Parts: sequence; structure tokens; C-alpha cells
Amino acid sequence: MSTPTMQLSHSFADFLETLAEASSKAIMPHFRNGHDVENKLDGGFDPVTIADRAGETAMRELINQRYPDHGILGEEHGPENLDAENVWVLDPIDGTRAFITGLPTWGTLIGLTTNSKPSLGMMVQPYVGEYYAGDCTSAVYKGPVGSKTLKTRSCNALQDAVMFTTTPALFPPAEREVYDIIEAQTKLARYGTDCYGYCMVAAGLADIVIESGLQAYDIVALIPIIEGAGGVVTNWNGGSAAQGGQVLATGDPRLHEIVLKKLSACAA
Amino acid sequence: MSTPTMQLSHSFADFLETLAEASSKAIMPHFRNGHDVENKLDGGFDPVTIADRAGETAMRELINQRYPDHGILGEEHGPENLDAENVWVLDPIDGTRAFITGLPTWGTLIGLTTNSKPSLGMMVQPYVGEYYAGDCTSAVYKGPVGSKTLKTRSCNALQDAVMFTTTPALFPPAEREVYDIIEAQTKLARYGTDCYGYCMVAAGLADIVIESGLQAYDIVALIPIIEGAGGVVTNWNGGSAAQGGQVLATGDPRLHEIVLKKLSACAA
Repeated sequence: MSTPTMQLSHSFADFLETLAEASSKAIMPHFRNGHDVENKLDGGFDPVTIADRAGETAMRELINQRYPDHGILGEEHGPENLDAENVWVLDPIDGTRAFITGLPTWGTLIGLTTNSKPSLGMMVQPYVGEYYAGDCTSAVYKGPVGSKTLKTRSCNALQDAVMFTTTPALFPPAEREVYDIIEAQTKLARYGTDCYGYCMVAAGLADIVIESGLQAYDIVALIPIIEGAGGVVTNWNGGSAAQGGQVLATGDPRLHEIVLKKLSACAA
Repeated sequence: MSTPTMQLSHSFADFLETLAEASSKAIMPHFRNGHDVENKLDGGFDPVTIADRAGETAMRELINQRYPDHGILGEEHGPENLDAENVWVLDPIDGTRAFITGLPTWGTLIGLTTNSKPSLGMMVQPYVGEYYAGDCTSAVYKGPVGSKTLKTRSCNALQDAVMFTTTPALFPPAEREVYDIIEAQTKLARYGTDCYGYCMVAAGLADIVIESGLQAYDIVALIPIIEGAGGVVTNWNGGSAAQGGQVLATGDPRLHEIVLKKLSACAA
């Protein structure tokens, strides 16, 4: 098939799709299956599925086969060789709550850091059949309505902005206070979107994602997509978001400055 | 193509798909287009798109052609012949906020009332290519992973239940208080789902939808799907939900009794 990654110049871009196919094949039999949800933590509801583990195992096997000198950081199976020049950063199911409730707004995140910097990333939604990929300098989409280059949209004021966050309940009180002030100034806020929020920003359909408490594997794959589409992703101090934590992504760099100024009051 | 409706015995079931195709064709050029959002109300953000109107116009034309004696109730273009035995109840884009932000969790709702009772309904998501349809006695799915009969799942206790609502912010204070108590007892609550929540209950992937302030066109199409899959939909008094307003849907009838008892305190 025609690949979205073929338009990216990054030398590992083709391999992204190989990983995406393997992961999707491992995950899809479990989507909307309804029988194999496990609880990760006792007492709380932190769902993780057999699918999540199967997807990561499938990708790890391919990476170990083809690039045995590369490192791997995954949600499910722990770190391997993180001192390598190239490290794959994997989250087979970002949006486990969407996944277990049948909603098509989870995605598989496949990222690559080169010398610790995010250099390549893809989000795949195998049920819908859509792909978002980027290499920090360009970004592409492929899906049910064809293929296209991803470009963020212009938005220079909070009052015009559409904002995403997974849930405001994620934020500790000091962060929540600042978040709520920002949200109140936006045109529209949407919750529960996980990786989709970032991809919609890359696609020019939304303007801001604000999140906190992220892991590296929640964000590394998305940084090259948003940056490749013309957006900006940093932590709340304006530094690299590659370690996760507090993350701010915007499509318009001018909006990033505006929001960052507000968030810096509660930056870690 | 093989239709999901062909498994339904309702005499107008085939026509559902004709309407779905026409509506989808009118809507899809506008999805993720990013250029044609209008504001319905001054001062507030109640987005409605050209797509919504185009979808409804396309369906109305077909209904008027094929069943000129049928009535039509639609969100965009007002009522026609509501005293007819058969009245089509249309919402071309349920989930306009999902639509305008690019998320694939909106749907086209096509319902039919016969002698004022919901008798047939479909939810179509044209970007994903999935269909949920029901006629109160059976319900079917067709989509990217094939076709199947829809059956709700067993869930007899709030602590085991997955619950959907579009947003708790919809509820006036007295309702919100009761809703929050219920939500706190569930295993998991998801927001922002619109028609998808009901379809996930029909598909046995979730257990409860609680909403308030609905219009008839938000719910009529969904009642025959949930009932056909084995679930129950009523207002908070346990009466017909066909007029909208306060709506409770559950997959397991026993759970409906449990939740209805709690909601009845603030039933209108």
C-alpha cells in the first residue's frame, strides 16, 4: 500500500509502518472484544489489556531483529539499552479507557529518539485506519479520505482556540487552578482525547493541548508530528517535553508563548 | 454492499441505509475541512456546520420523494407533518463539537417513530464506516471488522459499570448532585461521547448513559438500537424517553432499576 511515511525523509521512516502493521495486527483482535481487561493496580482502575502487551511484544521483536543496537522504552515491558543513539519509544495503546469502552479515539504511539531527541513519530488508529507521522520537519496523514501533508492552523488568541486535555482531574490543585483560568478563556475545550488531541492540533483542527503527569512514551512519538506540522511542544518551562511530565502543545507558535506565560506560574 | 439493516425485519429498514448514504455523502466533504463552522447562537459557542444542514436536506428530499405521507422532525429545518403515522426524526451530526474538532466520535442519527413510538433507528459514522441499527426487537452492527448482532452485556451493580455522559456540565445543580453521587460509585465514567455512548451500551462495551436536556432528535434513533440489543431507555421517571429531556439508558435491565431509583429524586 501507499505509505504515509514515504513522504518523510528520515532514514527509519519506512520502518515506522512495519512496526505499525505488526502492532495493529496484535491489538485489533482484542478491540471491542470485552473479555480481556486486566487491572494494573490493586484498588484503582488503571486498565491495561492483553492487547497492549501483545502490541508492544510484536514491535519489540521487530526492532530487536532489524536494529539490535537500538534501544527500546515501552510502557509494558520496561527499558532496553537506553544509552543507544537510537531509542524506540512505544505505547501500543495510548487511551486505554477509550479502548476498553470501544471508542475509536485511542492510538498506537511509535516514537524514535536520536541522541535523546525525538526525531520521528507515528500515531496509528488501526480500527479507523488512519495514520499521522512526522519527523520534526514535515508531517503527513493517511486515512479513509486519502493522504495529505499536515499543517497546523493559525490561532493567535485564547478566545479563538480549541483546546484538548485528557481530563482536568489529572491536574494537582495548583495546576488545576491555572488550567481552569486558561480553559475559561478558550472557545471550546474537549476532554478524553489522549493522543488524538495532539494529532488534531497537527492537522489544523485544534489549537492547544495541555497535560500533566505524562510519561515519555505518551509524548515522544507526537513531538515530531506536531513540530513537523509547524507547531510547538514543550514542557511548562519551555524546555524539552521528551521526558513527559507537564506538556504544552500548540499549533501556532504565537499561541504557545501566550499559554506558556500563564502555565509557567505552576511549572515544575 | 451487504447492509446491516437487512437483518432487521422492520419494513422501512432498507430505507435507513438509503438515508444514511445520502447524508454521509452530503456531510463528508465538510468533515475536517476546517472552513465552514458557523455559530448558531450569538454569544455562546453552539457550533453547527454547513454539513449538518446539507445532511438533513439530503435526507428530507429522499423522504419526501419516497414517502410523501411521512412526517419529518429534524434539528436544522423544523417539523413537517408530525401528525403522520410514521415520522422520521433526524440529527445529521450528533456530536457537533467532536465533528468540528476532527474527532471520529460524532454520528448521524436517523430514527423513525410509528404512532409516536420509536420503532427503527440507525447511527452512522461515515468517516469510520460503521453502522449501528435496531428495530426494538433486534440490533445489528456493520463496520471495519465485519457485521454482527448487537447484544448488551450483563452488569448488575454500579461498581462494575462503565458510564457515559456528554458532559456533567449539562446538568442543572440538583441533577448534578445526584449524577455525581452515581458517577462516584461507577467503575469508570467517560465524557464527550454523544451518540457513541448509547451505541457502546448496545454493543455490550459500556453499561449506562445518563443525560439531561436532550431533544427528541438526540435520542429517538438510539432507542430502537438499545432496546433491540436488550437494553432499556427511559426518562428519569421510567416513562418514554422519546421526547428527550432527562434520559437514562442501560444495557442490563436490572441496572436500570438501580440507577432509576437514584435519579427519580430529581426527575422532572
